[in-house]
Amino acid sequence: MKLSGLGEDALVARWTRNPPRHAALRVGPGDDCAAVGGPRDTVWTLLKTDAVVEGVHFTPDADFTRVGWKALARAVSDIAAMGGEPEHALVTVAFPPALELAKADALYAGLRRCARKFGISLAGGETTRSPGPVFVSVALTGRVERARCALRSGGKPGDVLFVTGRLGGSLAGKHLDFTPRVREARWLVAHFRLHAMMDLSDGLGADLPRLARASGCGFELRGPLPCAPGCSQTQALGDGEDFELLFAVSPRQAARVERAWPFARLPLTRVGILTANQRSTTLHGFDHFA
Amino acid sequence: MKLSGLGEDALVARWTRNPPRHAALRVGPGDDCAAVGGPRDTVWTLLKTDAVVEGVHFTPDADFTRVGWKALARAVSDIAAMGGEPEHALVTVAFPPALELAKADALYAGLRRCARKFGISLAGGETTRSPGPVFVSVALTGRVERARCALRSGGKPGDVLFVTGRLGGSLAGKHLDFTPRVREARWLVAHFRLHAMMDLSDGLGADLPRLARASGCGFELRGPLPCAPGCSQTQALGDGEDFELLFAVSPRQAARVERAWPFARLPLTRVGILTANQRSTTLHGFDHFA
Repeated sequence: MKLSGLGEDALVARWTRNPPRHAALRVGPGDDCAAVGGPRDTVWTLLKTDAVVEGVHFTPDADFTRVGWKALARAVSDIAAMGGEPEHALVTVAFPPALELAKADALYAGLRRCARKFGISLAGGETTRSPGPVFVSVALTGRVERARCALRSGGKPGDVLFVTGRLGGSLAGKHLDFTPRVREARWLVAHFRLHAMMDLSDGLGADLPRLARASGCGFELRGPLPCAPGCSQTQALGDGEDFELLFAVSPRQAARVERAWPFARLPLTRVGILTANQRSTTLHGFDHFA
Repeated sequence: MKLSGLGEDALVARWTRNPPRHAALRVGPGDDCAAVGGPRDTVWTLLKTDAVVEGVHFTPDADFTRVGWKALARAVSDIAAMGGEPEHALVTVAFPPALELAKADALYAGLRRCARKFGISLAGGETTRSPGPVFVSVALTGRVERARCALRSGGKPGDVLFVTGRLGGSLAGKHLDFTPRVREARWLVAHFRLHAMMDLSDGLGADLPRLARASGCGFELRGPLPCAPGCSQTQALGDGEDFELLFAVSPRQAARVERAWPFARLPLTRVGILTANQRSTTLHGFDHFA
């Protein structure tokens, strides 16, 4: 059988079943980041890796400065989704030897711009040759207070689901220029008891079922979804690469979050609820191997 | 200009000049690992990423279990080179959708085998599509007592240079099956004041000049080198992927290390000295972009 015969989620589940665990691993595979720390530590270290591949996440004629930004910003978004602050990045790149030096330089300029914006070290990495496409893999560490760490798995039936921002249409440019929601996530975890949170990388249609499944819940979408200009509801659900936050809070906290939300330029929208019934409708999102 | 017009070391120097730094970064780009920790921490966290690429580090018909082992073991070797213990790994893989599931499964089996052998978590990662070769990028954390952390940069003129094991001929199989020298490195840093250490990934001919340069020294090789069976001195110098330790100690410590060395099955060999004259002969090692 080929990989394309199974879905991305089934493959990941297959490869992360019963993984080797070190005693200090607090959160393992299946969430936006791993979290590690000793049993008495009040601050945990978050660990994330991510990758962008030429021909999959960007085209060969893309502006490589924006590709560099994207490569790091994707991982920053995952640190934000746990309620954390990013700290140190390591960048592994495979370049074809015939690549123009100016393009490689631009990639690193974009990585630096993102690192400076979020106060992140470019602490190291590896450079190697690629016989094909450009491949950029980022490893990022972060920190989060244990009491504020937001997982995917804490949602409860009746919880209200929110998304930040406007969804869909990312391919028109946002997928290369988005701002990870670190500031908003830090504000949320500092002021509210979030039951669950994740970032939207494959589209609400793929990611909401993941959050619900991790929480042992079903869900009901209650539209309309907040759409990017010119986008349909279908695009908002399925386009992917929004890098907005999806989170679940109790109905009581939900009203407080809405009243206190201080980010005037970033909409906050109720998009549904978690339910006790796990047989939710399947939604359409992005699958890398389909 | 193309990347192939510059050497690997020149490219890395170009891209890591004056990098963004977080306050907790203790050791940045240019060593085997990055090290982070607060100013009063007695234990530092080590961070490493590395990658293997189909067609560069392994052939499409390779045993993917051994490729998985190699992908993680390379990074483990870098943690060892700092004197540390590996802790948590994250694995990012880009697979072509037409890849046989059995091969991908084998890759993860090899990763697990290496993780179990060294007590490492497989804490997470990312799986994505490749339009070409298989890419495997590993991010690994480790820990090292600050006082035992071994850098490349502390070598002094007159220091004795040692290598562990036998060099050369790795392509015959060792490059997929090597054992990272964690045990030996931990013993060394626990009992001796090493001035400098690194692991041999591109061959002594490429790596010794890096250690010498980082230490502001030159070097003299004093052969013969310890050769793998059937290998010439040239191969021992240039084949690469030995994943043995290269370290520098004072002449007084050198004699003590030799007397106390408890690993009867692993040779320990003096291969030269560091010198004050930085105009050393250039040696031949592996360059990814040449």
